[in-house]
Order: sequence, then C-alpha cells, then structure tokens
Amino acid sequence: MRYAVLGTGIVGRTIAAKLASLGHEVVIGTRDPKATLSRTEPDGYGNPPFAEWLGFHDRIRLETFADAAAFGETLVNTTAGDGSLQALETAGAANLAGKVLIDIANPLDFSQGMPPSLNPVNTDSLGEQIQRAFPETKVVKTLNTMNSQIMVQPSRVAGEHTVFVSGDDAGAKQAVTDVLISFGWPESSVIDLGDISTARGVEMLLPIWLRLWGAVGHADFNFHIAGA
Amino acid sequence: MRYAVLGTGIVGRTIAAKLASLGHEVVIGTRDPKATLSRTEPDGYGNPPFAEWLGFHDRIRLETFADAAAFGETLVNTTAGDGSLQALETAGAANLAGKVLIDIANPLDFSQGMPPSLNPVNTDSLGEQIQRAFPETKVVKTLNTMNSQIMVQPSRVAGEHTVFVSGDDAGAKQAVTDVLISFGWPESSVIDLGDISTARGVEMLLPIWLRLWGAVGHADFNFHIAGA
Repeated sequence: MRYAVLGTGIVGRTIAAKLASLGHEVVIGTRDPKATLSRTEPDGYGNPPFAEWLGFHDRIRLETFADAAAFGETLVNTTAGDGSLQALETAGAANLAGKVLIDIANPLDFSQGMPPSLNPVNTDSLGEQIQRAFPETKVVKTLNTMNSQIMVQPSRVAGEHTVFVSGDDAGAKQAVTDVLISFGWPESSVIDLGDISTARGVEMLLPIWLRLWGAVGHADFNFHIAGA
Repeated sequence: MRYAVLGTGIVGRTIAAKLASLGHEVVIGTRDPKATLSRTEPDGYGNPPFAEWLGFHDRIRLETFADAAAFGETLVNTTAGDGSLQALETAGAANLAGKVLIDIANPLDFSQGMPPSLNPVNTDSLGEQIQRAFPETKVVKTLNTMNSQIMVQPSRVAGEHTVFVSGDDAGAKQAVTDVLISFGWPESSVIDLGDISTARGVEMLLPIWLRLWGAVGHADFNFHIAGA
C-alpha cells in the first residue's frame, strides 16, 4: 500500500517509520520540503532535525503536501491541529478525494496560554471540520489520544488499553482497524464510537491526557475502557 | 460523620443510600422539600418518585438546601450542573464555609440539542466556578466520570478502573479519598490530577462517556488509566 503521511513532527515520523517497517511505500508531505530539510536545529520538543531523522529511513521520501497526497492511496494527517485544514487544502481536494484519511491531529490552541485549550471544541471538532471541508474523503479519527510511541507499539503499556475510531464510513473504519491491528493492536482494543461527530469526545480527552502526563510523571499510559 | 447530599436525582439518592449504609447521618437537600415529596410520577429518567424512594430509607431525611448544608459536616453536590451554582447559593455560603464539598455534578447543556454539550468548557469548569464562588469551601471534584451505581460499587466493573480527584486542598482530597475507599475503591485506583483547574479535563470526559454508552450498549463501564 502507498501511504502519504502529512506532517514532519514526531507523530508523522513515528507513523511513517512504522508503515515503512511493515513494507509499505511511504511519502511524507510537508509545506516546503527544501525548508524542512534545511533545518539543522532540534524542533521545539527536542526531536532531531528532520533531515537527520530521514537519513536513517532511506525508504521514506519527503515531498510537498500535494505530491505526497497524490502518491498516497491512504493518507495520514499528523499536522498540528491549528494548521491541518490549510495543509489539507494545500494538498488539494482532488488528491484526497475517494481516499481514507486517518486523522491523528488534535486541535490544541496555545493562544490562551498553558495548558493548551481546544479549538474547535464541544459543539464541533477538527475531525468534523476536515470531513465537512473534504466531503469526498473518508475521514477516520483515531490514535489522537495517546503518545506517539504507543500508537505503533501498544505493548509499551501493560494490560488492556483502548484505541478509538470515529468516522462516517464503515468500510473506511474497518480498513483503519486493519492498519491498527498491523501496528500491534488487538482487535478487541478497538472501540468504534460511531460517526465522525464522536471525534468531539476523543479530542476532548486531550485536556485530561495533558494533566495525567503531569500527575503520572511519564507518557507511557493510555485510556482503557474497563467493562466495555 | 454528618453528610448533606444536595440533589434528589439518581446520583444523590445513590450516594445518600451508600453513606447511610456506612453508618453516617445523611440529610438530602432540595429547593422545596414539600414539592419534591408531592411528586407522584417517575422522573425523566424513569426513576421512582422521591417520596417512594425515601420510604425505603427511613434513616435519611429531606430538608431545604440551607438546612441540609447547615447540618452537614461534609457536603456532596449532585444537583444538575446548570443549577448547581444557584443551589449552592440557596444553601448559603455560611453553611458551606470551611467544609469539604464533593462535587459530582457535570455541566451538561441540553440547550444545543442532543447529545448535550458542556457549559462551561475548555477554559473553565463547573468545579472551578464553584470554587471561585465559595472560596472558603474546599471543593473536590470526583466521581463525575461514571454511572452512579459504579460510584458506590466499583466492583460492578471487572478489572482495574480509575476514579479521579481534583482540588486545591490536599487535606480535603485525602478526606475524599478516604470516602472513596469506604465506598470500595482501592486506593491504587484513585488518581490525584492536581488543582481544581483539572476539573476541566474530567468534565470533558462526559462527551466520550455518552458516546461510549451508546457504542458499548450499557453503562457498566469506566475509564481506566493503563500504565499509570
């Protein structure tokens, strides 16, 4: 399968590396590949420059959002939530049409200070905004409720824990569930919450996730729905 | 210990009955006791009229918010979230001062249609609103993230699951943790998220809780933080 992973941050890198390790063809999309590759400083989270990371993953290519999206049969949105709609518009609706878009982004809003709030929230969600903006794309919200390393290696967290899927298209949700299973998720860990409006609930897990990160003291935890 | 449980709905009844069964003196507070006792129809959720329920719990009394709050050494807010501030004002700041207030309410807003949204949300919470309105009261948000039967009988849900506490006063949170342990919660299930602003995160669990209720098909589930 050909995948386009949009976004060069730690989530995009982690997902892209996992997909490549599973034998898929992976292109990462970014606004300006030359600018991305020219950076020599770690990013704001202390991750190494993208070019350094890419040097260890020679089966992965970096292209523009549009070229990546045109290449991918399945798309993964790992861009920062406040830039996701613009990134997807740059990728081009025609390049997204008819495809499954796995949306991992969270609409974190740092403009109100720390900890970040959400925008949109409560009566809307980023997942719904994307689905409305690209009605011919099959948006499936998933994996946004945990640290990126757990996304692709769920065994990092002992015991049962949960990954949610939200989306309007049953076939797309099944396809994404198959991707999750290929990442190591037991099928019994996947909870289908319903249509894309359930993205509100999973995006609204972020505020408690951030506080748990502080209270627990590490990021190797995850939500589990006991008794489900 | 003398407890005042404010609110006559299913959460208030369940908490009051549990506290009474543990040997505590319990008064339930309501706006207008005569009106509450005169109802002969089930409530909107199909629960029996309050007077019928009270007939099976002869150690529990029903009084006004103010009389109940004056009686209680510890207070429990189980009123509907959109009426909590008014109920507590009616109870009277002097009757709340210096006491621990266990806040179980959720600020569900049905005015935007179903499913309910939250108000306040995101950059504020009901727990914080109550703490700001009653600065001499020690507000501890807890138990609002699950069905009422699980609150007082956590063994209904198999395996480990979590109850959160949020509040500014460490002693009050310890006292509430002791109450939770008396309800059957293992101490290891209690996660102290931090100050009362962490009530935002636990209140924002409601939207996914409501969707899980639909997806799972029953209410005997709970959040667990795996790996914490």
